[in-house]
Amino acid sequence: MPNTEQLTRYADVLIQVGLNVQPGQPVSINAPIEAADFVRVLVERCYHAGAATVSIDWYDPLCKRIRLELEPEAGLQDVPKWVSQKMLEECQKNTAFLHIDAEDPDLLAGVDPRRISLQSKARRAALRETDPYFMEDRVTWLVCSIPTTDWAMKLFPGESAETAVAKLWDAIFSVTRMHEQDPVAAWREHLNKLQERAAYLNKQHFVKLHYRGPGTDLTVELPERHQWLAASAKNDQGHAFVPNMPTEEVFTLPKRDGVNGTLRSTMPLAYEGVVIEDLELSFEGGRIVNFNARSGYETIKELVETDEGSHYLGEIALVPVDSPISRRNTLFYNTLFDENASCHVAIGEAYPVCLEGGVDMSKDELKASGANESMMHVDFMIGSSALDIDGYLADGTLVPLFRGGNWAI
Amino acid sequence: MPNTEQLTRYADVLIQVGLNVQPGQPVSINAPIEAADFVRVLVERCYHAGAATVSIDWYDPLCKRIRLELEPEAGLQDVPKWVSQKMLEECQKNTAFLHIDAEDPDLLAGVDPRRISLQSKARRAALRETDPYFMEDRVTWLVCSIPTTDWAMKLFPGESAETAVAKLWDAIFSVTRMHEQDPVAAWREHLNKLQERAAYLNKQHFVKLHYRGPGTDLTVELPERHQWLAASAKNDQGHAFVPNMPTEEVFTLPKRDGVNGTLRSTMPLAYEGVVIEDLELSFEGGRIVNFNARSGYETIKELVETDEGSHYLGEIALVPVDSPISRRNTLFYNTLFDENASCHVAIGEAYPVCLEGGVDMSKDELKASGANESMMHVDFMIGSSALDIDGYLADGTLVPLFRGGNWAI
Repeated sequence: MPNTEQLTRYADVLIQVGLNVQPGQPVSINAPIEAADFVRVLVERCYHAGAATVSIDWYDPLCKRIRLELEPEAGLQDVPKWVSQKMLEECQKNTAFLHIDAEDPDLLAGVDPRRISLQSKARRAALRETDPYFMEDRVTWLVCSIPTTDWAMKLFPGESAETAVAKLWDAIFSVTRMHEQDPVAAWREHLNKLQERAAYLNKQHFVKLHYRGPGTDLTVELPERHQWLAASAKNDQGHAFVPNMPTEEVFTLPKRDGVNGTLRSTMPLAYEGVVIEDLELSFEGGRIVNFNARSGYETIKELVETDEGSHYLGEIALVPVDSPISRRNTLFYNTLFDENASCHVAIGEAYPVCLEGGVDMSKDELKASGANESMMHVDFMIGSSALDIDGYLADGTLVPLFRGGNWAI
Repeated sequence: MPNTEQLTRYADVLIQVGLNVQPGQPVSINAPIEAADFVRVLVERCYHAGAATVSIDWYDPLCKRIRLELEPEAGLQDVPKWVSQKMLEECQKNTAFLHIDAEDPDLLAGVDPRRISLQSKARRAALRETDPYFMEDRVTWLVCSIPTTDWAMKLFPGESAETAVAKLWDAIFSVTRMHEQDPVAAWREHLNKLQERAAYLNKQHFVKLHYRGPGTDLTVELPERHQWLAASAKNDQGHAFVPNMPTEEVFTLPKRDGVNGTLRSTMPLAYEGVVIEDLELSFEGGRIVNFNARSGYETIKELVETDEGSHYLGEIALVPVDSPISRRNTLFYNTLFDENASCHVAIGEAYPVCLEGGVDMSKDELKASGANESMMHVDFMIGSSALDIDGYLADGTLVPLFRGGNWAI
């Protein structure tokens, strides 16, 4: 466990670079109860940054598991009205949302995936109204992480709980640039580089990408008004924030019906407390027409069959295998980290911010512009040192984008 | 720490005797995050008892302290709308509420009492609409407890944390009859005895009580339709529940303007994270005209000056010094336990259930019948082996009720 000074330094980087808390802004923290020591530091530092109030939504993963095992189905599907009212009220108050994503990847192993999906869908449906606040970056949000014991033991089996947690802290500090002398300055430099990359891609106006790798042969058309984005976003008040820490990706949306071919995941996906391995998908006209997985098949089935939009992709993101996270060769079993070690795509909803003018578009306009709509948005990893990606310009010119898993430009 | 079997047994007694959870009933648990191990057992046992859903409101005392120290005043006074909506929604669904009352008695020592009071008042005001659900026993509610480390160390100074917690578990198990072979049967027998006592008092129709002890010389008139109650209550669905575990009291309400004389507390009162000692109050025509305290004066001042009703008493309760809790001679610094070791009174709101027909009365009718109204309800202890209480019948006959702190009847 880092000492208080190190925790304070980490909290400050999350608050300054990630949330960019403004004087008078409310902050809402969503955290597992095991994170209490760090949350207390976070709360104190949020007040020092001028937060008007700091509220905390605690959750206990083990109680969540008990509920999913034992609660009658009607209860799992019933989301109280106050849940969406709370979210709406917080969004309308321009709250900055910080989520600590830290969970045992096997938390829900053995629990009926249908019951997990029932509850998850009910919750997403209840929060549908406030989704745009996040998908359009209207409010500040940040997903970050700290170690929890079960998760650390999964990553470092054979180690004592204490050593495993210490190693995971070190891994997290390493990939969030906390080992730099001035992490805030290091982050600014990093964000600039990512944005330069996005600017380059936007200048090219690619019409199509072609992914090739073991089990993968996929063409992805891009909407005319697609925009590559990276790392930094702006909320409704014009304040910059960084929604993920760490972040190594540049990303945009695919054309909803312009995805064809096959895709194979290259890393396990820890999703809803279940580990999904060797996911394979086939696409025709954008739609998933076939899928398989060596483990977690039922979970993937529930995900894909959630709604019509969960049969389509909503995001494609480029991350080279020489990214700092990838070079560590640590499988985190946590998408926040693993997706930043690897090219990835997301099943489900597209970010309207990835379309020029998309934030001001109606649902119909978004759809007509090629953006997919779904209540889901689940990333999975497809990058490896065997991945090549070609970009195609409007005139048909082929531009080698990735070779051997790294940028070729 | 008790083993899982012991925790399960305790949970079952709380669920069966206290909440009396009905099949299909929702349960809401309010607990400090330190109670997680026990809460997980509780949640599981609630489902086994047929709960439709079990939701948990976690709180962290240390985050509460940080907030009270650092949050701008506007924030302390602002209770989001969803808080009252949530409570109303839960009450309307006939939820059973379980609160684990376990806090370091010195949690807020040194924090400005005015800021504590600001926040507490704002919260009480926000929940005013749903107060009657609890004050009239319309919904099932239970206050119970388990040890937390800081609290246990306060009670058993000089012991290791582990030993202190073990000793507090033993004390709690002892006073909640968990050492009996069949705790549920022991509870039934105990509740019967308390209700016999209440029935005796109701038969007497006392018009006035006279308390005498060191620093105490107080007459308390009783409203014409007062009812002595004990231990067991009935919710709107007619299901019995026990709102406090442990409970040793029989209680009723005083006539709002019929309290005169002086009163001295006999045990410290842990209230809002501050310990109040040697509280002295003077009453004229029911109203507190003077008050003092050796410690915690500012906190008592904030309490008494909350609203007009917080200048009056709302409850009187009789507990002999030979009650099991009192005989342990453990000062718990927690009103749930200490009030059940001692005669006590409460500043503030009266329970409408203590008036015959009170639950169906309007606010004006309640007032006309002698019931006090306030947003506060705070008990403090006035019993000791030096306390005598006389009861007066309508014809002026004096009945010795308590002698030397014990029942004289």
